[in-house]
Amino acid sequence: MDKPVGIIMGSQSDWPTMKDAATILDELGVGYESRIVSAHRTPDRLWEYGKTAVSRGLRVIIAGAGGAAHLPGMMASKTRLPVIGVPVQTRALSGIDSLYSIVQMPKGYPVATMAIGSAGAANAGLMAAGILALSDPALALRLDAWRQALSQSIPEAPRDE
Amino acid sequence: MDKPVGIIMGSQSDWPTMKDAATILDELGVGYESRIVSAHRTPDRLWEYGKTAVSRGLRVIIAGAGGAAHLPGMMASKTRLPVIGVPVQTRALSGIDSLYSIVQMPKGYPVATMAIGSAGAANAGLMAAGILALSDPALALRLDAWRQALSQSIPEAPRDE
Amino acid sequence: MDKPVGIIMGSQSDWPTMKDAATILDELGVGYESRIVSAHRTPDRLWEYGKTAVSRGLRVIIAGAGGAAHLPGMMASKTRLPVIGVPVQTRALSGIDSLYSIVQMPKGYPVATMAIGSAGAANAGLMAAGILALSDPALALRLDAWRQALSQSIPEAPRDE
Amino acid sequence: MDKPVGIIMGSQSDWPTMKDAATILDELGVGYESRIVSAHRTPDRLWEYGKTAVSRGLRVIIAGAGGAAHLPGMMASKTRLPVIGVPVQTRALSGIDSLYSIVQMPKGYPVATMAIGSAGAANAGLMAAGILALSDPALALRLDAWRQALSQSIPEAPRDE
Amino acid sequence: MDKPVGIIMGSQSDWPTMKDAATILDELGVGYESRIVSAHRTPDRLWEYGKTAVSRGLRVIIAGAGGAAHLPGMMASKTRLPVIGVPVQTRALSGIDSLYSIVQMPKGYPVATMAIGSAGAANAGLMAAGILALSDPALALRLDAWRQALSQSIPEAPRDE
Amino acid sequence: MDKPVGIIMGSQSDWPTMKDAATILDELGVGYESRIVSAHRTPDRLWEYGKTAVSRGLRVIIAGAGGAAHLPGMMASKTRLPVIGVPVQTRALSGIDSLYSIVQMPKGYPVATMAIGSAGAANAGLMAAGILALSDPALALRLDAWRQALSQSIPEAPRDE
Amino acid sequence: MDKPVGIIMGSQSDWPTMKDAATILDELGVGYESRIVSAHRTPDRLWEYGKTAVSRGLRVIIAGAGGAAHLPGMMASKTRLPVIGVPVQTRALSGIDSLYSIVQMPKGYPVATMAIGSAGAANAGLMAAGILALSDPALALRLDAWRQALSQSIPEAPRDE
Amino acid sequence: MDKPVGIIMGSQSDWPTMKDAATILDELGVGYESRIVSAHRTPDRLWEYGKTAVSRGLRVIIAGAGGAAHLPGMMASKTRLPVIGVPVQTRALSGIDSLYSIVQMPKGYPVATMAIGSAGAANAGLMAAGILALSDPALALRLDAWRQALSQSIPEAPRDE
Repeated sequence: MDKPVGIIMGSQSDWPTMKDAATILDELGVGYESRIVSAHRTPDRLWEYGKTAVSRGLRVIIAGAGGAAHLPGMMASKTRLPVIGVPVQTRALSGIDSLYSIVQMPKGYPVATMAIGSAGAANAGLMAAGILALSDPALALRLDAWRQALSQSIPEAPRDE
Repeated sequence: MDKPVGIIMGSQSDWPTMKDAATILDELGVGYESRIVSAHRTPDRLWEYGKTAVSRGLRVIIAGAGGAAHLPGMMASKTRLPVIGVPVQTRALSGIDSLYSIVQMPKGYPVATMAIGSAGAANAGLMAAGILALSDPALALRLDAWRQALSQSIPEAPRDE
Repeated sequence: MDKPVGIIMGSQSDWPTMKDAATILDELGVGYESRIVSAHRTPDRLWEYGKTAVSRGLRVIIAGAGGAAHLPGMMASKTRLPVIGVPVQTRALSGIDSLYSIVQMPKGYPVATMAIGSAGAANAGLMAAGILALSDPALALRLDAWRQALSQSIPEAPRDE
Repeated sequence: MDKPVGIIMGSQSDWPTMKDAATILDELGVGYESRIVSAHRTPDRLWEYGKTAVSRGLRVIIAGAGGAAHLPGMMASKTRLPVIGVPVQTRALSGIDSLYSIVQMPKGYPVATMAIGSAGAANAGLMAAGILALSDPALALRLDAWRQALSQSIPEAPRDE
Repeated sequence: MDKPVGIIMGSQSDWPTMKDAATILDELGVGYESRIVSAHRTPDRLWEYGKTAVSRGLRVIIAGAGGAAHLPGMMASKTRLPVIGVPVQTRALSGIDSLYSIVQMPKGYPVATMAIGSAGAANAGLMAAGILALSDPALALRLDAWRQALSQSIPEAPRDE
Repeated sequence: MDKPVGIIMGSQSDWPTMKDAATILDELGVGYESRIVSAHRTPDRLWEYGKTAVSRGLRVIIAGAGGAAHLPGMMASKTRLPVIGVPVQTRALSGIDSLYSIVQMPKGYPVATMAIGSAGAANAGLMAAGILALSDPALALRLDAWRQALSQSIPEAPRDE
Repeated sequence: MDKPVGIIMGSQSDWPTMKDAATILDELGVGYESRIVSAHRTPDRLWEYGKTAVSRGLRVIIAGAGGAAHLPGMMASKTRLPVIGVPVQTRALSGIDSLYSIVQMPKGYPVATMAIGSAGAANAGLMAAGILALSDPALALRLDAWRQALSQSIPEAPRDE
Repeated sequence: MDKPVGIIMGSQSDWPTMKDAATILDELGVGYESRIVSAHRTPDRLWEYGKTAVSRGLRVIIAGAGGAAHLPGMMASKTRLPVIGVPVQTRALSGIDSLYSIVQMPKGYPVATMAIGSAGAANAGLMAAGILALSDPALALRLDAWRQALSQSIPEAPRDE
């Protein structure tokens, strides 16, 4: 199947953050779909997405949300597929609320939580790739190359701008 | 109907906190049921509870949970009945995680959030009674009496113990 | 009576936040009045407002305040009507001070606390409507329709902008 | 008049903290009364206390409270006398809630906020004495002596215990 | 003496905040001096200021500082005069650092801590006036009038802008 | 290979937390090794572990640490294998320091962060199993059964104890 | 000179924490003196200590304090010698207050801040030794050996207890 | 040797902060080199830098980093030279994440932590100079002069702007 990753988010306003996950997957040649699945506004869509995830061929789910960010945790309740959570930065609490709501899951339902904001979204893409690379040697090579390129892009000394 | 309030909680370990809501309802002569409904472990039970709440005659739902406390918010997504949320105190983060996960709900799905811990649970019972009293004059009188008794129980000066 | 909801706030500067509560009530066809009632600057107005709330026909009070936000809690002390509190975002502490001052009420005087800022104000309107809908079937239908419309407004996938 | 200081607190449970203010005033020979005045449970007592404070001869008010600690700020709204606030330590939030509720007062109604807990209560007594000493030379001498004794009580080096 | 209040601050950059204290004192007809006294950069000036405060006729000291805000507490160590502390808002920590450094004083050396930022500075002026009014009936009348005017300035209802 | 999971931790004192990861893996029949690999005390061991992880047949690494918890992030720098981080609770900061040090990784080096403490460690085991189950149908069945058993263990109503 | 390190602290109650600095210096053969120097209770002692530190032969000062911990910063104001600050854990705020008061120093007066509590005190001893070792080759060797012994003390795998 | 200080940072984006350390060293006539050494992206460079630091003649290392800021702590693991850490301000968490990741080091590996942001970077330069001045009397004189100039630059009173 060619879309092993599902990128889901609570609302359109999360997309500017979450598209950094999509960008990384594009760079690594990993197929994905992106969907808006709101835990509160479209709970039945969440249910359906979770229940059919395995049968539709998804292998990893990246879920981004902000505030009382229930999407990643509820998805983890509905599927055994690895769920990667991205706390979206919020206006009043800067994403601390998102972070706590995603990371503090009870025993039984892990969410692989990333950093707040865009760096976290990009890392969600990399974590998904790292998981898929376990059974995809070609992807493993591409991921190694991506990491090596990042490492080699670092100049030796800072420059004034 | 004689059980207008549903007290739900994420696990048995929340009961020592949540029973303070039950105690208040007992004192005020308000009927209730108490159930364990875990957002993550029993999501279908949550769905069912939310969908049938109105038809079963429930009028207010009190939901307590700790950590990534998704139960109150998910219940608010499934029913238009007022949902009162109680953040249960947690070990590492003292219930700040529970509070943020419950109170920071997005537009559309309010949760009437109470204080962290037992005082919050008792107040959830009082809030439920205050809501029901709007259409139950006898309960309104009992609530007024309860409040007056609390007020009158305060001694004028502190005493050494 | 046609104005069952009282929207009160500590100062004019809270209105840009609190009018989101008014907007929701307008959308749902719920009557309301909006007043400035400062706990500190006009304590006697607060007293009067609380004491006459029931007799004037109010059924729910929405109270917004920022910083050492005493208005919601003091109103809860003066009336048994349900009080919904909205923490207004503040400059230095982003509304954490408002949130703690509103939500951490002692046993006896619950305040139904909403999220910090405009989303919380809108949700205060929805919570008020949900409470009133318990004894107003037509409002219940309008609230159900509002919720359904919100749910149906969610596109399936995010779009670049 | 011989009781220029009023020590008030929200409940009996605040007394173990607040009596450290009383102890200091005893040591300095400053008269005081101690009362339970709950902002929420006895708002009319608070009103009365504030309104009559000047005429009864009070000159400084020390107010301790925990959680959504509204007592000090509401008292500052009712009297121009200096109000000293003591944030009482709380179970879930360690008194951060008390501190924010007391210190973050809006323009117009200052509360002289002390440290959380017993040290803060003792310092409230000292602050009251410092204020009264401005027009009481004998008290100023006693306060100077108290401060000097504290300073001289410090050993030069720490000792194992 | 006609300058009973000393307004001191750690640096020129604190003045935009602290001048709100000066403005209030101007409005109330209370004399003051304003000085830069840095705890770290001019510790000897701080020493001198504290030691001579009483003899120079000062009666209240308002001290504003940000970050590791040692000025108010060190001044409280050097004089028995009431010291009012104003936590100046900071860039990274928004003044939480200033607040904790000022309010968490050990037993013996109280600092009357105000809110973070300009509201706190204005309130420092009002607190100083309230203290001085204890022995200045004319000032007490002016303070009462100031408070009454503030109270009467509040409109009954919010207006759109 | 029969030990696809490496459980590493910064010190012996992390083991009471981290053994909950081992217990889960035992329950699910997943092989693992447990090692002490301190980022600071044994950096060369960390280097070696990271460099040889793939060749030794490891497929997932679970890393627990407390305080300035550098182990998970440094391991993520040394290997493309998925690294799951467990913030160990600490004395002064309750594990907030551990959480921030683990989750706030820069772009390029994701750490799949779990909840603070034992629940997080157990969930690390489940996340590892979920990842391995993607290419191990028998494990997927066992994981489904484990999840189903957890779900079915929840009683319908709370009981007094 | 044989006592190049001064360990100072705000009160006797800091000694259980600060003696871990002394223990490390004993282990490394570095001479030190330990003194109680309270910024608030004995400011003149602080002044004297700071002014004579260089001439008395001190080369590094370790200063521990809790709450509004002004000692390290004030010492940094009085001497150019490196000052190492240890935030002592506090009851209500767990040492966050101590940490912010010590670390957030303004430009000009650095305090080398360590972790909260005993680990920080021990590290203060090691930092002092590292500084002195720059001009003491024998101490450098002892420090290298201490570090190597710590590294070698780490067992390969955790053990049940 | 004429470059006793190494200024290292995790990425180019840290340079606007860290160059304030360089500026101070320039002002004090202390030689330095500035390098980008990323703990995660260039761990081998970090290793090499740490291992050769003493032999290359470095005497103090200033390390700045943001977020999960592992660079200062890992460098402290690789060399006995004093490591001064600068928490760089971050977008979501304002540098609290950087601060905790740098300051909360375990026993054995101290990092001399400075304030968040540019003031911290400048102070890192001053701390480095203070350490080097212990064995460089000319630098000690320059540092004394720098401190005296800072002290004398403070005007007596604030001025309106």
